[in-house]
Amino acid sequence: MKKISLLGATGSIGTQTLDIIQSNPEQFKLVSFSAGKNINKVREIISEFHPETVSVLYEEDAKKLETDFPSTRFIHGKEGLIIAAAQSGADLLVNAVIGSVGLEPTLHAIREGITIAIANKETLVAAGDIVISEAKKYNVELLPVDSEHSALFQSMNGENPKNVSRLILTASGGSFRHLSREQLKNVTVEQALAHPNWSMGNKLTIDSATMMNKGLEVIEAHHLFNLPYEQIDCLLHRESIIHSMVEFEDTSVMAQLGSPDMRVPIQYAMTYPDRIPMQNAKPLRLEEIGALHFEKMDYDRFKALALAYAAGKEGGTMPTVMNAANEVAVQLFMDGKIPFLQIEELVERMMDKHQTIAKPDLETILGIDLTVREMVYNSIK
Amino acid sequence: MKKISLLGATGSIGTQTLDIIQSNPEQFKLVSFSAGKNINKVREIISEFHPETVSVLYEEDAKKLETDFPSTRFIHGKEGLIIAAAQSGADLLVNAVIGSVGLEPTLHAIREGITIAIANKETLVAAGDIVISEAKKYNVELLPVDSEHSALFQSMNGENPKNVSRLILTASGGSFRHLSREQLKNVTVEQALAHPNWSMGNKLTIDSATMMNKGLEVIEAHHLFNLPYEQIDCLLHRESIIHSMVEFEDTSVMAQLGSPDMRVPIQYAMTYPDRIPMQNAKPLRLEEIGALHFEKMDYDRFKALALAYAAGKEGGTMPTVMNAANEVAVQLFMDGKIPFLQIEELVERMMDKHQTIAKPDLETILGIDLTVREMVYNSIK
Repeated sequence: MKKISLLGATGSIGTQTLDIIQSNPEQFKLVSFSAGKNINKVREIISEFHPETVSVLYEEDAKKLETDFPSTRFIHGKEGLIIAAAQSGADLLVNAVIGSVGLEPTLHAIREGITIAIANKETLVAAGDIVISEAKKYNVELLPVDSEHSALFQSMNGENPKNVSRLILTASGGSFRHLSREQLKNVTVEQALAHPNWSMGNKLTIDSATMMNKGLEVIEAHHLFNLPYEQIDCLLHRESIIHSMVEFEDTSVMAQLGSPDMRVPIQYAMTYPDRIPMQNAKPLRLEEIGALHFEKMDYDRFKALALAYAAGKEGGTMPTVMNAANEVAVQLFMDGKIPFLQIEELVERMMDKHQTIAKPDLETILGIDLTVREMVYNSIK
Repeated sequence: MKKISLLGATGSIGTQTLDIIQSNPEQFKLVSFSAGKNINKVREIISEFHPETVSVLYEEDAKKLETDFPSTRFIHGKEGLIIAAAQSGADLLVNAVIGSVGLEPTLHAIREGITIAIANKETLVAAGDIVISEAKKYNVELLPVDSEHSALFQSMNGENPKNVSRLILTASGGSFRHLSREQLKNVTVEQALAHPNWSMGNKLTIDSATMMNKGLEVIEAHHLFNLPYEQIDCLLHRESIIHSMVEFEDTSVMAQLGSPDMRVPIQYAMTYPDRIPMQNAKPLRLEEIGALHFEKMDYDRFKALALAYAAGKEGGTMPTVMNAANEVAVQLFMDGKIPFLQIEELVERMMDKHQTIAKPDLETILGIDLTVREMVYNSIK
């Protein structure tokens, strides 16, 4: 029985993680979770899973819940997130929050020796060097949950990392893959949220449309697999069936394939190194799909991806800046405050203004993250 | 430095194995090899690699060679093949002979504790149960060399075999994949030998055209990976880029991909569990290939494959009969004695006549192998 702590329980990855726990009651027990403002969902999860500890965003919500669930411990805010992650006695933390808010809970859990299933890519983008060095220091495994990184991780199973020559991240192209940059000028939020293959959270779907998501993944892959950016490539693959590939120095390429279903990589991180049957899943039948297509990535068309490579290669605080600017810009687009193409313009502007600090400590990163967010908000007033 | 013994040195796999040894003189040393009648090639190999022991088919060739290469030990015939395989002090036997003649040398090498890189699929088809049980008894690894089985083996790297739900062998369709059964009636040997993707020996190329090669591979996979035939599927994949796949019970599919180049799986078996760079190899660029295609296997069109499944499921001596009949029928076709479609007719006729013996010993298998060969030769006189 694996004890699970889940950050971001009401989001897309969180909900699917709960599905897996529910389907496998002899394998998993939810001991703690965090959520934001969706208190109705929080009540449902408590009634179903009976966790010991629950963290919510606001103190008043925590107080109300205490009355209804007297045998559950309620905590709140940033501190609550850290406690839910690190002081719950969990064997595995599934970090499925969105944004760099997941950084500090991750670091605290690592220091408690808790294995991390990481769906929160912004944490690795904002502070990858620190997270990886702490994980090494405390001998804690970081298991990827993103379908692409899970595919890379599975493709490297049993292999010697020194024999890897190239990581190949596949990209569907997102909601707007058939549009030119000219056509992107007037796209709406609703259009951006209609991803052709994957059912994901909103932030992730917008990041897929800008291709910033692939950029974040490139930086995440750099940290998780300890390879220079020159050895990380992206390939357009519209069907999202090959979830990513690893090329070895003998030219052999290992790949992980499957129907697009986020529960597969989530469950793999939860059962690793074992596998268990997936409930109600659609097995892959390539004879029904007929053909898989591949195209060279276009870094002019998908400018956000080029920005991410630039930020990654620059290193230091630059990825932090890029990520913070992108998080706010995506929010502004979803709120109808800026047009679609301004997301990457804002990211580029913040990167241009920034003087990179080469080896920042955590405080510096958190400070810069906050400053950049404010600058982006102020820039459109 | 790994000491290599190579059976079938002048054939297609043999020549490519020698290429790899030559390209990696610090990794490999050829200590013995066998060849048949191509004595000019034998002389070249001795001059280049200076092995200690060489086996040829005929005694008179061995005698002539002794004069020219006084510091080399020459042996011959069936006995020579066994000595070259098992008494050469090799760490690894690359068994690249064609046909069930490779069976006895393999068994002798296993009993000497020598790891086997097996390219000789007929050995596993004719006597898979015996070979596998001997390998287990002597704790000897059988490493596949066939591109399909190497792909399956690589896809199972680091995995628990109990989690495998299905093996998916890919098949290009061979030289005649676009022809109907009606059109197959008048095809020539030259047409059959023109394989669209792979450069292989003649017997293997004809077996690809009849799809018997895939049938032999299905039986080989059954033995190597210990799975029932119900869990082994074939999929038409005309580009031969995905070399085969393994589906796990969580619906995840692992695959090995690459440009069609037999040196890659040969070298993998020679360096396993490590990998080394492949000299002069063409890296896979899916963006240049553009699309990979998949079609359901047609067991009516490819009748030899259906026969192989039937033989495999029947078990006992039936696969031995099927293999022996096929070996002779392919030879008769190549010699211009029978038309293409008569290959599978002869195989089917021999299988129909045969009363299966459930758990045959080696002598029974060798006896049946010989009897069936004679029956096939006699049947067309």
